[in-house]
Amino acid sequence: MENSRYEAGQKVMEELFSEQVRQDMKGMKDVSPDLWDMIVSFGFGDLYSRKALSLSQREIVTITSLITQGAFDQLKVHLEAALNVGLSREEITEIIIQCTGYVGFPKAVQAMQIAAEVFQENSEYSSR
Amino acid sequence: MENSRYEAGQKVMEELFSEQVRQDMKGMKDVSPDLWDMIVSFGFGDLYSRKALSLSQREIVTITSLITQGAFDQLKVHLEAALNVGLSREEITEIIIQCTGYVGFPKAVQAMQIAAEVFQENSEYSSR
Amino acid sequence: MENSRYEAGQKVMEELFSEQVRQDMKGMKDVSPDLWDMIVSFGFGDLYSRKALSLSQREIVTITSLITQGAFDQLKVHLEAALNVGLSREEITEIIIQCTGYVGFPKAVQAMQIAAEVFQENSEYSSR
Amino acid sequence: MENSRYEAGQKVMEELFSEQVRQDMKGMKDVSPDLWDMIVSFGFGDLYSRKALSLSQREIVTITSLITQGAFDQLKVHLEAALNVGLSREEITEIIIQCTGYVGFPKAVQAMQIAAEVFQENSEYSSR
Amino acid sequence: MENSRYEAGQKVMEELFSEQVRQDMKGMKDVSPDLWDMIVSFGFGDLYSRKALSLSQREIVTITSLITQGAFDQLKVHLEAALNVGLSREEITEIIIQCTGYVGFPKAVQAMQIAAEVFQENSEYSSR
Amino acid sequence: MENSRYEAGQKVMEELFSEQVRQDMKGMKDVSPDLWDMIVSFGFGDLYSRKALSLSQREIVTITSLITQGAFDQLKVHLEAALNVGLSREEITEIIIQCTGYVGFPKAVQAMQIAAEVFQENSEYSSR
Repeated sequence: MENSRYEAGQKVMEELFSEQVRQDMKGMKDVSPDLWDMIVSFGFGDLYSRKALSLSQREIVTITSLITQGAFDQLKVHLEAALNVGLSREEITEIIIQCTGYVGFPKAVQAMQIAAEVFQENSEYSSR
Repeated sequence: MENSRYEAGQKVMEELFSEQVRQDMKGMKDVSPDLWDMIVSFGFGDLYSRKALSLSQREIVTITSLITQGAFDQLKVHLEAALNVGLSREEITEIIIQCTGYVGFPKAVQAMQIAAEVFQENSEYSSR
Repeated sequence: MENSRYEAGQKVMEELFSEQVRQDMKGMKDVSPDLWDMIVSFGFGDLYSRKALSLSQREIVTITSLITQGAFDQLKVHLEAALNVGLSREEITEIIIQCTGYVGFPKAVQAMQIAAEVFQENSEYSSR
Repeated sequence: MENSRYEAGQKVMEELFSEQVRQDMKGMKDVSPDLWDMIVSFGFGDLYSRKALSLSQREIVTITSLITQGAFDQLKVHLEAALNVGLSREEITEIIIQCTGYVGFPKAVQAMQIAAEVFQENSEYSSR
Repeated sequence: MENSRYEAGQKVMEELFSEQVRQDMKGMKDVSPDLWDMIVSFGFGDLYSRKALSLSQREIVTITSLITQGAFDQLKVHLEAALNVGLSREEITEIIIQCTGYVGFPKAVQAMQIAAEVFQENSEYSSR
Repeated sequence: MENSRYEAGQKVMEELFSEQVRQDMKGMKDVSPDLWDMIVSFGFGDLYSRKALSLSQREIVTITSLITQGAFDQLKVHLEAALNVGLSREEITEIIIQCTGYVGFPKAVQAMQIAAEVFQENSEYSSR
């Protein structure tokens, strides 16, 4: 039963993240296997796997929360995830612009610089 | 020209907020006419009026940012706005649940209590 | 199996909170049964039930995090929980004083005022 | 020697706050005499008494920090202090407007509503 | 008319920032022309160009807000701006010290380390 | 008398930090002798030297507050201090896991990565 939560988490992580990113994230398993299990089973299994929002709506929530709390270390992989689940560059750029009115310019500027890197490294996603 | 930004803001505010809420907000005009103008012209005119995101996507950003920063005083009117622009109760509830993994339980719980009030006061929006 | 996580959560909540507080918290079950399940199963079952820290050490973490993020709405029940799991008034007061150096005076002052209320309402815990 | 820090703090508090506000603040002395001593000796004695900034410059720092961290409970007495040490209504209003670009609208709006109350209750300070 | 807001922003940016810093900032124009326009037209044109506060008072607000929210990436250019609009090293150091009481030591220490770098790189501004 | 506060601070710093870390921290003395004096006399002398909490309890407060506010630059030396005053690796790991429920995953993950570095560099502290 516990397994089903972990498996649900793994499945949604495959939709969100590239093989490489999942491999990097898994480094946490060596550091703290318990935290890793919570990330997969609760974070992705219990939360992201739920049906009431689409994955692209969930990434709007995630990106906005990361920008608002200034958690820029985690922003890059979730900007990539946003592209992977179907948000366009224009929509991602616009999420950051909308944040301006709610968090001010400094965090929006820092987010946009990270988005620029992500867009450059993921040129397979056209500008539309 | 300035007028067009203000007018665009007013127009989008009519889609987001009830007559009563707009009336209450306008109390700011007496306190600081300049801040009021910025709210309407920049906040709603320049930001919300843009096309790259739908109003319901914008309210996902707004609600998430308010929850993450603990700005619960402004949350109620934006939960109502979310209903007005087409987000369902299930989707709004789910935005708050998704926040749990990014901001922790205390802010999610406080948000859910406010959502419960909003849902009760807006019973014309069916549960689906 | 899911049941065991929920039951572990309920058991630790009985150690932390009075009957009355648990009753009040359970109001969330009507608002969002899913969030309620996560609070009990993940928050209390998965986190608080773990052995590596005592419940009084966990409440030091909780109280400090609530003060630092300004989540004063949830502080009261956790100050009571701290008393229930064996922290003295002097220790609780001191947690708040230690916070001064890390979050500044405004949040420490607000926390101390809530602590004063809690101490007054829980006079069965001597000042030791 | 300790006394000189406490006395310096008391002296600067007389410049900042009305008799009534100082009386209210002193309620903290009963709750935690040690925190009270730190507030007076360190907060006001060591910090506010220094010469490199004027008291009105210090209140710009204080008000901005309170708005940015959402510590609205302490904002009112510092808006009054700002008036007492010579900042005009226009300057206080403008501090809040300047914050808009750095913290977003929600916190600025909440601050402006508190400023409106303070201005109404302190009508002896002309709008200049 | 839009032009006048943008031009007002550009003009105040020339008072605040060196040619080099303005050049670096303008990198945002390639990333998101729309965010860049908002930064110049709203951030600098609508906010910084207003008359009710001096530019040095505005930089006290900005620096304090950046420290309080932990936005250290943007702090350096605004510490330089503070020097450019007439705040002395002593005043800037003192803003950070005053913040200690409102945000705690960790953020103040991080800010002071950045200030030390800025002072070293801008030795043309004497210590008084 | 002032001396006794500074000396108390120095004494507790010797219990918390290695010679090397204390040497690095002292770099602040050149940048701002006044902020340095406040850190030692108030931060460590007035706060950490108090008796109502043990040093290991104080480090639980400190680590939790740093994680909650995202002040990761200061986290490393305090994770080392936690080891020095007797918290085990398991307890430190658990503080971070407990934080998950109160601040969300992003800050917990970032903290755990820093803890992993600290544990590797301090292999003399067995995993117990």
